[in-house]
Order: sequence, then structure tokens, then C-alpha cells
Amino acid sequence: PCVAKMHERVQAPPSRPPAAPSGGGLSSGRRSSAHMRRGSLVFGLAAPTHRMNSFDSLDYEEAEHNFIKARLDLPPAAQQKVQLRILILTSALMLVVGMCVGSISYFITFLVEVITTWKWSFVMGAEWDAGNFGLAYLYLMACVTGLTVIAALLTMWAPQAAGSGIPHVKSYLNGCKLPDILSMPTLIVKVMGIALCVAAGLPVGREGPMVHAGAITAAHASSILSKGLSGKIGRDYGGFDNDFHRRNFVSMGAAAGVAAAFHAPIGGILFSLEEVSSFWDPTLTLYSFICACLSAFMVSTWEEIEGENQATSAIHATSSHASATPAGVSEGHDGGHGAFIIWRTADAQLNHLSYRAWELLACLLIGSICGLLGGTFNWLNMQLTILRKRMYNKRPRLRVIETIVSIWIVTSTFFWIPVTYPACAPTLNSTSSAFSMISSPQCERDHMSEMATLLLQNSEAALKQLLSRDAPGYFSPGPLALFSALYYLTALLIYGTAIPSGLFVPSMLTGAGIGRLIGELMASAIGHLPGVDIDPGTYALIGAAGLLGGVTRMTISLTVILVEVTKDIDLMLPIMFTILAAKLVGDRFTKSIYEIHIELNGVHLLDVHDLPRPLMLAPARSMMASKVKCLLERESVGTIETMLSSCTHNCFPVTDDTGFLIGTTTRVKLEACLRDARESRGSASKGEARDPVRRATIRRAPGELTRAATSCNLHKATSCNLHKSRGVGG
Amino acid sequence: PCVAKMHERVQAPPSRPPAAPSGGGLSSGRRSSAHMRRGSLVFGLAAPTHRMNSFDSLDYEEAEHNFIKARLDLPPAAQQKVQLRILILTSALMLVVGMCVGSISYFITFLVEVITTWKWSFVMGAEWDAGNFGLAYLYLMACVTGLTVIAALLTMWAPQAAGSGIPHVKSYLNGCKLPDILSMPTLIVKVMGIALCVAAGLPVGREGPMVHAGAITAAHASSILSKGLSGKIGRDYGGFDNDFHRRNFVSMGAAAGVAAAFHAPIGGILFSLEEVSSFWDPTLTLYSFICACLSAFMVSTWEEIEGENQATSAIHATSSHASATPAGVSEGHDGGHGAFIIWRTADAQLNHLSYRAWELLACLLIGSICGLLGGTFNWLNMQLTILRKRMYNKRPRLRVIETIVSIWIVTSTFFWIPVTYPACAPTLNSTSSAFSMISSPQCERDHMSEMATLLLQNSEAALKQLLSRDAPGYFSPGPLALFSALYYLTALLIYGTAIPSGLFVPSMLTGAGIGRLIGELMASAIGHLPGVDIDPGTYALIGAAGLLGGVTRMTISLTVILVEVTKDIDLMLPIMFTILAAKLVGDRFTKSIYEIHIELNGVHLLDVHDLPRPLMLAPARSMMASKVKCLLERESVGTIETMLSSCTHNCFPVTDDTGFLIGTTTRVKLEACLRDARESRGSASKGEARDPVRRATIRRAPGELTRAATSCNLHKATSCNLHKSRGVGG
Repeated sequence: PCVAKMHERVQAPPSRPPAAPSGGGLSSGRRSSAHMRRGSLVFGLAAPTHRMNSFDSLDYEEAEHNFIKARLDLPPAAQQKVQLRILILTSALMLVVGMCVGSISYFITFLVEVITTWKWSFVMGAEWDAGNFGLAYLYLMACVTGLTVIAALLTMWAPQAAGSGIPHVKSYLNGCKLPDILSMPTLIVKVMGIALCVAAGLPVGREGPMVHAGAITAAHASSILSKGLSGKIGRDYGGFDNDFHRRNFVSMGAAAGVAAAFHAPIGGILFSLEEVSSFWDPTLTLYSFICACLSAFMVSTWEEIEGENQATSAIHATSSHASATPAGVSEGHDGGHGAFIIWRTADAQLNHLSYRAWELLACLLIGSICGLLGGTFNWLNMQLTILRKRMYNKRPRLRVIETIVSIWIVTSTFFWIPVTYPACAPTLNSTSSAFSMISSPQCERDHMSEMATLLLQNSEAALKQLLSRDAPGYFSPGPLALFSALYYLTALLIYGTAIPSGLFVPSMLTGAGIGRLIGELMASAIGHLPGVDIDPGTYALIGAAGLLGGVTRMTISLTVILVEVTKDIDLMLPIMFTILAAKLVGDRFTKSIYEIHIELNGVHLLDVHDLPRPLMLAPARSMMASKVKCLLERESVGTIETMLSSCTHNCFPVTDDTGFLIGTTTRVKLEACLRDARESRGSASKGEARDPVRRATIRRAPGELTRAATSCNLHKATSCNLHKSRGVGG
Repeated sequence: PCVAKMHERVQAPPSRPPAAPSGGGLSSGRRSSAHMRRGSLVFGLAAPTHRMNSFDSLDYEEAEHNFIKARLDLPPAAQQKVQLRILILTSALMLVVGMCVGSISYFITFLVEVITTWKWSFVMGAEWDAGNFGLAYLYLMACVTGLTVIAALLTMWAPQAAGSGIPHVKSYLNGCKLPDILSMPTLIVKVMGIALCVAAGLPVGREGPMVHAGAITAAHASSILSKGLSGKIGRDYGGFDNDFHRRNFVSMGAAAGVAAAFHAPIGGILFSLEEVSSFWDPTLTLYSFICACLSAFMVSTWEEIEGENQATSAIHATSSHASATPAGVSEGHDGGHGAFIIWRTADAQLNHLSYRAWELLACLLIGSICGLLGGTFNWLNMQLTILRKRMYNKRPRLRVIETIVSIWIVTSTFFWIPVTYPACAPTLNSTSSAFSMISSPQCERDHMSEMATLLLQNSEAALKQLLSRDAPGYFSPGPLALFSALYYLTALLIYGTAIPSGLFVPSMLTGAGIGRLIGELMASAIGHLPGVDIDPGTYALIGAAGLLGGVTRMTISLTVILVEVTKDIDLMLPIMFTILAAKLVGDRFTKSIYEIHIELNGVHLLDVHDLPRPLMLAPARSMMASKVKCLLERESVGTIETMLSSCTHNCFPVTDDTGFLIGTTTRVKLEACLRDARESRGSASKGEARDPVRRATIRRAPGELTRAATSCNLHKATSCNLHKSRGVGG
């Protein structure tokens, strides 16, 4: 008697091209068709279709729930009271989330610093200084292998912690939940793993993973609060334990993660808004504002506490080397610490450079080059990932071995290049030389080794070196070119292995190398002309902006993050021009690295505005299946249990006694309802599946089947079709 | 034979409360119920219901048009070609819009400067310096009266140019078009009027009106392009001349306006995103990025051109007075010019102040005070506007008289207070004293008059004075308190009169006065304690942020604008804390000033996410009317003409021959179609209404009546109901 037909069977094979956007003049423009083909290639080749059954699509509809309607029927005074309580609870939660995320970020930096210090001071520093390169290499390799083996094994335990996590968070916020991406083990592995990998000196950043860490923290906070919300409020409000609220919390958490990692609260919010969130509730602006603000504040507070501790313990101060000793040691306390800050307030007296109009053209040029390089990076990384997926799909343990081998290659390169080609340069005494430089036994006194400075310390310290102002000729073109090429290739190799790894800092570092190279070349070529005053440090920043833009295709958020990180607001316009060129050029060739990895994960990002083309042209009936399992408004626990175990459907129509469709409910909700029923046997003995089903059921008078119901169905139709390849009737 | 019932009759009386948001935990929270009542009061009292018939609601649906579907059916190569052309056209347009908006902003500043110089140098400067206050007053009054009478008469011609324009743009982007808000006369009046009023020295800002000016420019550019789009592209693409695209252009234009006015490209985009736009197409991020970037760049270019001209013409340089002469003259070239910039790069060497943790508490306190004052401001202004609307609804000419009288009061106060209470203070020689100060004949040599400095020059110059750093004791508490109170009251009086006027700078100035007052008091009270280093200039900035936050309730965009304007990124966190406190406190009492004025205009802002409560609980049938006018898929021009002239309906169902509903079309679209038909009589002689109706008609197979169609209807239902009080069957 089930009148409505449901939509779980796959009409379109999964290899169907992932849809051109309907592309108005202001829509994504020409980007589509080139990637449609490439996209379908990806889908056909490497998408792990066998895992898609574990994906879950989320249901964000809330406004139709009966308990919300019931609350709206309360008298205004009672409503106000409920809302006030909710506001207080939410604010308290925001506070907790902000503080946790800030603390996690600080904890990672702390761990990195401790391990790096240990690595340099006690393992290989002495041998390096003495010129015993063989021994130093052995020690370093042992150390790096130990660290990364731990990280890789941890990642085996929680595989979703690999990579940057931004693709995962982005697909979650788009409505497709991969298994375990918001679980506690993932958080732990992410935090520990990224600290170990950064400390090992690999070309990975800790900023991307902080987005994932922030998202997990916020999602857990939301669940915890929701469990604590019992009694009247819980009943009135229904808790936060639904997809609608969890999505908002995850968006906030992502914002807080970036805010903490870069000490860039506004950049964090914009990152969440522009890059990871597909939906943005207007009220989220305020809440993520609070959350990001607190998380950045927390990092400052921890730094202040550490600064005080340090001042009292003189031991720490004397054990750190002078400025010509290895970086990991002497650095750490003067530069960004806790958060990634290029210049602190005290250093910000560096000359604020203005620029000339013609330099904007140079920015456009550098941006275009970086866009090209970024596009190539994405394409190469995609090919590499496809290769990896093909090879290791069935033997996941091989991945660990591949990871270790990759890391050995990277570490060996990073070690032997500075030994064979130290590229000594005199140490500078300008303000910017406060940053860490690495001397080499092959260089004279008061000289540093350019290659060692760039390759052997952790990436944030090297980045600061490249961005130093007022120091033309600080780096020579040869080492810069070699460094950029090396870093580009190693970052390419590492992103996609079985360790947590972010791409922000590696991209920035490579870009800064390229930018500084161009700057130094320009300075020596036209620097003598009147009215020309080229600071290679500025060009390094421009290059960093360009390559990061070319790889990630972010615009506003990237601009703001860079301005917040460098504290140099005067360069905003040149940075914007660069990023613009990089994005426009890069979009000709590939999608952003995150979107590529989302597709490689087998997830298809749904565009909020544009229906995928095949769906747009297909009539609704082509997505309907006749063998659906229907539920009545009231069903016994037994019936539901039998039905759930007898089929793999994920979505069930609910009808009234006459077979008229009332709405739909999902497997997740039914399972939650069964758990509820089992827990409260007393009332469940009547055999009625209670609250959740009632809540999930969309009740409407026949004439009212309008927006919410149909959009819910449509959403399901699109996401189910693409993700649930073995649904109903298959 | 019309089966479908339509929805144009008002079921709910217009005095029905404007709906509580359904308020989830993360939704707007407690804000709703208090304002529901106040809102209904407003609606019942002063909403100009008799004008609502001229409102038009917009139709943003695009994806369902047949011509889009047809384009999707093109082969990929052809699609790519069309999209490339569109991309190039759009980019070119973006360039033009950005440059126009930048130039308009520069033009306003230029005009302000010329008039101010003339006012001071040739009209009253000499008399003021000589101490002939009576004569100076007469000259000033004549001058101000002349300027504002012109502005007020212009505003009579284009009444929508009054006020800041942000409420208008915001309601347009929410889907409700007031008549003439995007017309060319409005633009002209806005630009001329605001220049005259700012030059007259009134407490008005030119930043808000730039939002409106930018929006109009962009809307016109979109229409022009669309008319130029003929031939194949026009056919393939269908032009930009629809609500969907115009909305995007208007959002971009608003961003460009703020970007140009404040020289804050990122702030502009965020302002458009957070404050004025109800919908945000993800691709808008990139396009508004380009647009804002160019508009800020254009302002810089104009400034550079002017700087060069100035260097060559020595006459200009010698005619300007020394630093102790009236402000309008000596200022203008050192400080913000073209754009509102507090410190330029050269001045930015001012010490970048860091802050201590306890000062964040002070920020929270100042923020709360400012939130309270901002809420009060909004409430008082609302009462005043209601009063005005009541009095002048039937005699609009009285408004001009009221405006002139208000301006007389303000100008007299601003003149006589400095004369009677000059509050002399020594001129400072610190870096910050490069800004303009006004001497008074009542003060000694090398002394300035505090009150004259604050009240007699234009507001941006006064703001720079208040924000000057490194100058504790520069202003005394007495004058600061008097000034803040005066400015608060006069800004309150002026906003709502019949002249263009922005609220940004007046709010900031008042807030800066309050903040500096608190800072000076704190410095004298606890400045001697160890470890306390209070700079009142910082507190002035905090105060400015707080009051602007309390009045406008912006968060992210305000933070970014302030950081971009002051070039002081280190104070971001304190600014965020302040704005947060101001918003949270202010939201307890009133809505933002813009939302209040939107309601006072009779527009009801629709929440994208939350259906208004009465609509949520009402079944769809209660909004249906039976006497609708239906159209078949093909109708003759004559039928349509007769029908349009015989009724006031705005929305018409389209049915097939059997009377089955296919979709809806609107009066605007039908009128466009009739125009088309008249223009191309040749083909129209067959009597067929061609393209536009075909395009506008939503064609669907019976089973496919899904999201788009119903959401369109729902949207119409809500907006029509509230705006079209004399629709069908009334």
C-alpha cells in the first residue's frame, strides 16, 4: 500500500561524470568541463567504491520537527526562558571548544619543540658541529625513522587521521560523513602524529591538521553537551545531537583550528566560511567569531604562561645555543611559538614596505607562475594518489613501508644536499638576523650554510628566514632554486602517505623560495635603476601567497591569514593581486588539492546551488524504486528490528494507514530510536518506537508537501545515489 | 479550469508581528521575542502601507529555465566556449564596476575637500582667526544652509537617496525591491548630496552612502552588459538582465563601495557578506574579491595622480595654511584622502601597541557600555523616525523645512560651543600632531582649541585627532565628555532627515570620544602603577569599535574594516572582544539600526533559514485564493495586455490545456515580454508572446513538481503576503 516510491536504487553508475555546474555568468564559469572528464577518470579508476557503503549522508532538516513546532507554541515568556538557557549553554560550550582547540594547538607546538630540541642537542647536534656527517646522518635517520614509524602505526589504527583532514571536514560539511572522521581516536592520532612528523623535519605543516582537530573537538563538545541536556530543557529543545547542530559546531571548530594554528582569528572564520563549509547559517558568524577569538586568546595565554616559566628557569635559557647553532634549539622562543606567527609585535618594527604600481604587474606574473606550479602540483599529486590507491587498496600494510621509504628518501636528501653543497653566506646583523640560522663546519666562522638553514630546521623557522626583510642577497639564487625544486618534489611525495600532514607551510615555503629567487634576480638586474627599490623578502611573501593560492585556490581567507601572520597590512593589495592571478590560472588546469582528494576519497561534493547536470535533466521517476520498505507512523520495535536487519536500505518512507506518504526517516534515526527503546524498557514494553521516529517523521497535511520535504528528498536522492551504490532493490 | 490556487491575497493583516525566528540553539537565540513586540508596534504605527503597492518582490530562481537546460544540452566544447565568453565579459564588467566605484568614492572626497577649503579659506576662516565670531557664524550658517538646501531639494527629487542606503540595499538583496532604489537619479543625488552634507560639517559619514552608490553602479553595469549581449551569446546565455544576476552584481557593488570608501578591500567583501547580502553564491567570493580589489586600487591610483599634480603645482601648496590654521585646509593631504585611512604607510611607524591580558577586561567593559549606548541610540532614532513618519507622511515638503531646522540647530551648537568653551591645550609636537588642529583666537599661541578641533572640522579629521597615539592628556576629560554627548545627540537628530547621511563615521567619532575619555581617566587614575601603560589613543579606537558595533551589530566585517583602516593588526583581539561585548549587550535591547530602518520602510526582512512563525504554523491553503488569473502556455499579446491592465495581481499560474499547473510567472516578466513583443512587431504580429514568457515559465512533467517550483511559491507567498496588501481578491 505504499504509494510513494523511494529513491535509493542507483540509476546512474558511479562512474558517471560528476556533473557540470549549471554555470551562469557568475557561476563557476569555465572550470567545469575540463574537470568533468578528469573527474570521471578519477571516479572510474580509483574511487574506493567498496568502501562507500560505510558512508553516511547527513540530514540537516530541522525546521519541520514537531518538537520545534511545539516549542513555538509555548507562550513567549517560556520561549524566551528556554532560549536564554540555550544561549548560555551554547556560549559555555563555545568557550570550552575555543579553549580546548587553542590548547591542542599549543600542545602540538610544545611537543614539536621538545622533540626537535632533543633531536638536535642530544642526538646529532654535536656530530654535525664536529663534521662527523656519517654519524650524524645515522643518528638522524634512526631518530626520524623512529618518529615516523610511530606516526604511521598510529595512523594504521585510525586511518582517517592521515593527510591534512581538510578534505574530510569539507566533505562532512557538504553532507557526506565518512566513517570515523570525527572519532576520538582520529583526534588523538592526528595530534600525536602531526607533532611527530613536524618534529622529524619532514615537509609537512601542522596547520591543516589543526582544522580537523578543531572540527573533532567541536563535534565531541556538541555530543557531550547534548547528553548533558536532560530534563526540561532537553525535552523542550531536543538537544544538539542532530546533524543540523553538529554541522554548525564542526564549522566553528574548523574556524577555531585555523585561528589557533596561525593566530589568525579572522582568517580562521573566513577559512571555515570560504573553504570548508558548504552551508553557512548567518548566526554562525557570531558564534565562530567567539570561538575563534577565544582559541587565539588561549594560545596567547599559554605563550604568556610559558614565557613566565622560562624567565624563572634560567637552566632552559643557558642550555639553548647561541644564534649560530642549529635552528631547532635557538629558535622557538623568539619567533612564532604556540601559534605560527612570522613576526611578533616586538619585531614588527621591521620596515613596512610600500610598493609601486608596476610591482603589482610583477605580482600578477608571479601569481600566474605560481598558479601554474600549483596546478601542476595538484595534478601530479592526484596521479600519485591514484597510483597509491591502486597499489595499496588490497594490501594496506604496504602503505606503512612505502611511507617509511618515502621519508628515508626525503630525510637523506635534506641531509646530504647541505653537506655536499653547503652554500656558505655571511651571517647578517640586521634585525631580521634574529631568526635562526644553521652554521656548518664547512663554512667559516660567522657564516651560515644556506642549504642547511633552509632544509635542516623545521619548516616554519625556514620560512621566517626566507621572508626576512631588509636583507637583499641574504640567499643566493643557486641555493634558492635548488631548495624550491627539492621542497616542491618532496612535499608532493609526502602528501598522501600514511601520516598526518598539512600542506599550508610546505606550499608557502616552496612559494617563498620561488618568490625570493625572483626577487633576488630582479634586485640584481634592475635594482640599480633610479626609483626601484626591491626587497626580496617582500617577493618571498608574494611567492608564498601565490603558490598557496595555486594549490588551495582560497582567496579572501588566504589573504587575511597571510596578513594576520605577517602583520603587514600594507601588502594586502599586492597579495590579493597575486592570489587572484594564481587562482585564475590554476583553475584553468585543475581543481584545488582538497577537492581532488575529496573525489579520490570517493565523495562527490554537492553544489548547493547547482544541481548536478544528470540529475537536473532526469525526471524524478528515474530515481524511484518500487521495492521500498515502508513504515507506518507507529511501528513495534520488533518490526523495525526485523526490517533493518533484513535489508540494506538507508531511507524509509513513512505512511499513514491509507498508504499516503507522510515523510521519510533514515536508518540512523531508527537505530537511535531502537537504542532509546532498549534503554527504557519500561515504557518501551508497549512496543512503540518513541520520540526519535516521531521527531524524524515529517508530518504534513496532504496539501502541504512543500519545500522541506521535497528538498530533503532531493538531497537524499543526489547523495544517496552517488554514495550508496548497493541500496534498495539492487 | 484553473486547478492550482494562488496565494496573493493577504490572509494575515499587515500589522501581524514580524515573526519570531524558529530559533535553534545556534539560531538567533533570545533576540526574537522582545523585538517581536516592538516590531509589531512599528508595523502598526508607522509602516507606510499605502506605499507597499509599489514594492516588487524579486524572483531568483534560475536553474529551472529552459534556456539553461538547453545550454546544458550543448556539446561540452560549445559549452566551454560560451562559458569562456561569459567569463571574459563578466571580468570586463567587474573591472569597469570596480573602477567606477573607486572613482566615485574619490570624486566625493575631492568635492568635500574643495568645498571645505572654500568654506574655511574664503568664507569664514579670516573672521574666525580675527575673533569676529558673529560674522563668522553668519557666513558659516549661510554656507551650510546653501549646501544643505541643495542636498535636501535634490533628495526631494530622488527620495530614496536619503539616509545611508544600506537598509535599501539590504532589503533589495533580501528580495524586496523598493521603487527607484537602483535608479540613476538616486545615484546622482546620493553622490552629490553626501558630498555637500559632509562638506557642510554635519555629523554624517560618506561611507554608508558609498555602499548604495556601489550597488547602483553595479546594477546598471549589469543591465548595460545585458543589453549589449546580443547575437549568439545573448541567445545562448540569456543575458544578465534577471534578478538572479542583478542580485550578485549588487552584492559585489556593495563590497566595492565599502572597499573604496575605507580603502579596505577585505572589509568590503565581508561587509557585503555579513551585513547586506541575504544570499551568497560561493562564486561571488571570487568576483567580489576582484571587484573590491580593483576599486581599492583605483582609489590609490587617483591619489597617486593627485599627489603628482600637487607636487608640480606649487600654488596649491602655498595657499594652504600652516598646521595651526583651520583643519579643512591644512588637513586633506597628509591624512586619508580619496579613501578614509587613519594612518598612511608613512605614519604607520607609530608605535604598535601591545596590550596586557587585563586590558581585555577593560575592552569587555567598554564594549558593554557602548553596546548599551548603541542600543539606546537605535531605540531613540526609531522613535524619532516614527514621529517623523507620522508627521510628514502627508506633507512631505515639511520634511525639507524640518531638515533645514535640524541642520541649523546642529551647526549653531557646533559653532557656539567652541566659542564659549574653547578648552585650550598646548599643541603637541609628537608624530601624531601632524594631524590637523584648530587654533582659536581665545587661546594662546601654540595652543589649539580642543572643542573647535573636535567640532569644527569634518568628522574624519576629528576622528584622527581622537585616535592619536603617544599623546596622553592631549584631550581633557571635560571637553571629551561634552563632545561625546553632543555628537551622540546630533547624529541621532540628523540620521533620518531628508539628506543622504551615513552612520559609520559619526558612530566611530562618538565612540572614540567615549573611549578616549575612559582612557584618559584610567591613565590618570592608575597610570602611575607599575606595569600599567595606558595609551588613551588605543582606548579611543576600542571605543570607536564598540559604539559602531553597538549601533550596526556587525562583527567580523567591522573588525576587519577597523584593522584595515588603522593598519594596526596587533589590536585585533581587543577589538574583537569589544565588538563582541557590544553586540551581545546591544542585541538584548534592539535590533541593528539598519534592520530598524528596514522595518520602518515597511519591508519585512525574510530569514533565509527560518520561516516566519505564523507562516510555519499556517497550512498552505490559508494563503490560497480562488480568484486567480491563469495563463496557458501560449497566450496572445492582447490577452496578456488585457489581463495585466484589468487586475493588480503580480503572480500568475501557468497551466497546460487540461488545467494542470505547470508553474508560475510574474507581472514583471510578462511586462518584459510585452515590451519584447512590441519591439519586434514583425515576429510578434503572429500574436505570440515569445521568449521571456517561455523562459520564465517553469516547465515540468507532472511528477516533477519539486523543490524549485514550490520554494518559489513559498517565497512569493511570504513576501507577497507581507508586501502586497492589496493583491488579488482584496
